[in-house]
Amino acid sequence: MKLDKLISDRFKERPSECVIDSHAFMVRGGYIKAVANGIYSQYPALKRVSKKIENIIREEMDKIDGQEVLFPVVLPASLWEESGRFESVGSELLRFKDRNNSQMVLGMTHEEACVHLVREYGHSYNRYPFMLYQIQTKFRDEARSRGGLIRVREFNMKDAYSFHTSQEDLQDYYDKCFKAYQRIFARAGIPEVISVESDSGMMGGSLSHEFMLLTPIGEDSIAVCEKCGYRANMEAAKSIIVNNSDEQLKNLELVKTPDQKTIEDVCNYLKKPVESSCKAVVYQKDSDNSFVIIFTRGDIEVNETKVKNFIKDNIHPALIDEESGITAGFIGPKDLKLNGKYTVLFDSSLKGVKNIVAGANKIDYHYTGLNFGRDIEEPQFNDFAKIIDGGICPSCNENSISIKRGIEVGNIFQLGTKYTKSMNMQYLDKNGQSQYPIMGCYGIGVGRLAASVIEEKHDKFGPIWPISIAPWQVHLCCVRADDKNAKAIADNLYNSLQASGIEVIYDDRDVRAGVMFSDADLIGSPIRVIVSPRNLEKGIVEIVTRDKQISINASVDSAEDEVKNLIKKLFDEIEEKANNF
Amino acid sequence: MKLDKLISDRFKERPSECVIDSHAFMVRGGYIKAVANGIYSQYPALKRVSKKIENIIREEMDKIDGQEVLFPVVLPASLWEESGRFESVGSELLRFKDRNNSQMVLGMTHEEACVHLVREYGHSYNRYPFMLYQIQTKFRDEARSRGGLIRVREFNMKDAYSFHTSQEDLQDYYDKCFKAYQRIFARAGIPEVISVESDSGMMGGSLSHEFMLLTPIGEDSIAVCEKCGYRANMEAAKSIIVNNSDEQLKNLELVKTPDQKTIEDVCNYLKKPVESSCKAVVYQKDSDNSFVIIFTRGDIEVNETKVKNFIKDNIHPALIDEESGITAGFIGPKDLKLNGKYTVLFDSSLKGVKNIVAGANKIDYHYTGLNFGRDIEEPQFNDFAKIIDGGICPSCNENSISIKRGIEVGNIFQLGTKYTKSMNMQYLDKNGQSQYPIMGCYGIGVGRLAASVIEEKHDKFGPIWPISIAPWQVHLCCVRADDKNAKAIADNLYNSLQASGIEVIYDDRDVRAGVMFSDADLIGSPIRVIVSPRNLEKGIVEIVTRDKQISINASVDSAEDEVKNLIKKLFDEIEEKANNF
Repeated sequence: MKLDKLISDRFKERPSECVIDSHAFMVRGGYIKAVANGIYSQYPALKRVSKKIENIIREEMDKIDGQEVLFPVVLPASLWEESGRFESVGSELLRFKDRNNSQMVLGMTHEEACVHLVREYGHSYNRYPFMLYQIQTKFRDEARSRGGLIRVREFNMKDAYSFHTSQEDLQDYYDKCFKAYQRIFARAGIPEVISVESDSGMMGGSLSHEFMLLTPIGEDSIAVCEKCGYRANMEAAKSIIVNNSDEQLKNLELVKTPDQKTIEDVCNYLKKPVESSCKAVVYQKDSDNSFVIIFTRGDIEVNETKVKNFIKDNIHPALIDEESGITAGFIGPKDLKLNGKYTVLFDSSLKGVKNIVAGANKIDYHYTGLNFGRDIEEPQFNDFAKIIDGGICPSCNENSISIKRGIEVGNIFQLGTKYTKSMNMQYLDKNGQSQYPIMGCYGIGVGRLAASVIEEKHDKFGPIWPISIAPWQVHLCCVRADDKNAKAIADNLYNSLQASGIEVIYDDRDVRAGVMFSDADLIGSPIRVIVSPRNLEKGIVEIVTRDKQISINASVDSAEDEVKNLIKKLFDEIEEKANNF
Repeated sequence: MKLDKLISDRFKERPSECVIDSHAFMVRGGYIKAVANGIYSQYPALKRVSKKIENIIREEMDKIDGQEVLFPVVLPASLWEESGRFESVGSELLRFKDRNNSQMVLGMTHEEACVHLVREYGHSYNRYPFMLYQIQTKFRDEARSRGGLIRVREFNMKDAYSFHTSQEDLQDYYDKCFKAYQRIFARAGIPEVISVESDSGMMGGSLSHEFMLLTPIGEDSIAVCEKCGYRANMEAAKSIIVNNSDEQLKNLELVKTPDQKTIEDVCNYLKKPVESSCKAVVYQKDSDNSFVIIFTRGDIEVNETKVKNFIKDNIHPALIDEESGITAGFIGPKDLKLNGKYTVLFDSSLKGVKNIVAGANKIDYHYTGLNFGRDIEEPQFNDFAKIIDGGICPSCNENSISIKRGIEVGNIFQLGTKYTKSMNMQYLDKNGQSQYPIMGCYGIGVGRLAASVIEEKHDKFGPIWPISIAPWQVHLCCVRADDKNAKAIADNLYNSLQASGIEVIYDDRDVRAGVMFSDADLIGSPIRVIVSPRNLEKGIVEIVTRDKQISINASVDSAEDEVKNLIKKLFDEIEEKANNF
């Protein structure tokens, strides 16, 4: 199409609200317009990118025997009550009543709708395995949407659900889907995406993976081992702390520690290393508000998700009042006594620590020389800690963990029977016994993927779209469109390229070359063709890739063929990477 | 794909809740499953149909220079407040608050979102005309959803919006879109769709058309002239009633009419024809609850929309209390005096009526012999009446109107400047003057179109899908799949047809031919290929169209080519009809 007909404006200034590049380029390049907080309209250029991404996803899902369906956006709350998520999910689930006063929700994921659709279909073992997917609008009422399309409230997502009669069968399919995901990201132009083990969070399953694009602007943290290649998100990465002190046991002493606010303050004041101190972190269970106290080594942070998973309940930071019996700031494992029900947990980071500094549960007092097994019973240690940069790799045991930032561009979950059990979906097995099918689920956000591609593929002037998802394959510039010869040759090339089924955006505006090229940079087509009087004097048409890696001076007659060859070459490069998986 | 892997069940019994055929076949054939009142999930078969319809729509919209965009499903109420529709639209607009207590709505149509997207883009005349469209989920909280996909609450719709600098330019584009619509319906396999003039309702414009599939199960009424071809919906069809009485004027008399409830009762009691009586219909304005009294000839019904359009306000049936001064049952144009503000309107059906029977605004009394111009001032008559079956055609003036039922499968509206004015979208014209652009809007519901195709194209066994939108082009049945030879030949045909890019659903289940064929009827592929031992004994493969119009006994070797030829023939037939427009 002609650029002067393209609905959208492009501009130079980076809007002040755009913190990350993909957001800035999507606004500056006429891809999106904010309608409300975290809610965007898509201009034609982005819609074209989205459709291409969706088609790549479709092809890969179809290849692994997925069947496309469509679930509703608006769902009756009753379905979510069946699964228990109407209660358990927070206010990111948008709840409202319809005109008949029925409680409804906006679908943020569709496990319930999927089980509802196939509950009867899956009544016999011989119908398994099967997989359904949809590409559909979701709404998640995020408290803090940010970063343009990276974290939004309304988004288009591919969500897929598979059903199996055994864990082995799920694992087989899960592995296939894993490969399909690698192919999808490679075909979308970012083979850089890595997989990391993850906690499955509210989905409630066991093994899961997130697909991450590593970038400093990512909002997720990932533990990566530089030595052995181990990768996990912070919830799944086991924190290993080894305390091998040959220190002599000292006497237990009650010492005064007035005005010392933090465990670091206390250790400084007592001149003890923080690595031999014990810190308390206090939460309350969502279910009954009872207190949960986690003791860790003073320098180690708690990972809330690990605590949640261990106690199988949601938690929130504690509100400590006088009646609780908690001596805030002086909580320690010895002499701890709360009023009412409470849970005490010990993180593995405390295992092997000797002569510990710990709160004495008495205002302005700490113990020193506290030792497990002597002063208090040796507790059971579990992993509740955040893995740290430079920490020990749970896979190769080297001190080789580094913490990276990443954007989650997809995830795959082994759900188990959480939904089939709660929603009572059963099948008869070969022996006529009723069984609950085992589920997997697999998500990719389309808009976030588009934004991630920009994050990975751009220069300071704009996106460098991979040819597989570029809004247009070719950006044709007629510099000096007032020159009859140049215009005629450019028009001709435009028509013949289009006739060959090539997607061309044609700029024949009467504007300066600088304006033309900065617009082309923002639109980011991988191939640029420049027809100008100056080039034509030399008998050539310039063909350059957006990333400047390839530059061809083609004769006017060969220009069309050169463009076609270049398109093929760029596609081949992408396919080659995808075929690695 | 293989039928035994297709996610969905098919069954014989017509569900009792299915009143119309398309609903029954969609449930029985495994196309849809109800999730809530008026909200459905789509199984793979329907999703395939929907995608094909969407692609036909896309191609036709792109041909008339439409650019595809995407607006959000969830919209801030502020946008609808700008246009005034947050107030004016009833409870079919779903309103709710998000977690930050911001008022939001679910988009049921996207004029506001569209103006929001292009308000800045359209700042100069030289960017006009332009058209945007999207295919996106809408939600309309219908009080009475019914008929499967015919009237739902959540639906997928193509909505398009065009912007112009003159009424002439809008009219030009409107005509193009009109043709595009005719092509869309023809390509979807129902060239039977007709266009009718319509009232533009809450869209607020002037000239509009609805595209209707005439069918007795339709929920809309349409006035059709059998003589001249005039067609209009009930709101747009001008009602013409001619009263040419040469009766002598009689004296005005006040007569007692006790216990007569309706105007028919009164006329019977007084032995006067109801055609010389005057009936009152009373509404109240939504804005201030003031009364609106419409007088019509006793046998004529009021069309509410005509009243609304005339007084430019919404109305509701009146609640008449004693304080109003209204003498319910005895309201008439003479001596009418209400307390407070009120509006009195006269329908054209009263024009020329002599010696009228009318209420005397006094309990148990009517007038007879009432005459306009003598007993009361000759009023201004306007058209507020429903056109009647057998009535006069406003186009050819013959008594040739018949009232038909239809399903509205699409509509096109000339919106004027309603939205651009209220939302302050302006452009500078050639002379540097600010102007409001003129809009058109154009809708097609995808699911309703699919259901309408079934209504038009089915037999008692199931849908007869046009090849252009059929879930699969070919249904291959291997009768007696336990026969090795038959199975090998069918497998071979399946593979070779698929390799040629033909969409085949392959039934190689070990079931009776009857089961196989009734499933094939419900899936409705236009071409059926039957491989069976009995056929193979004769050396043939049977190829029949779903509508039984074509039946071919092909040799095994020529079967593939025959199928391909038949597909081409069926597509050609559809294209030929589309090319008529």
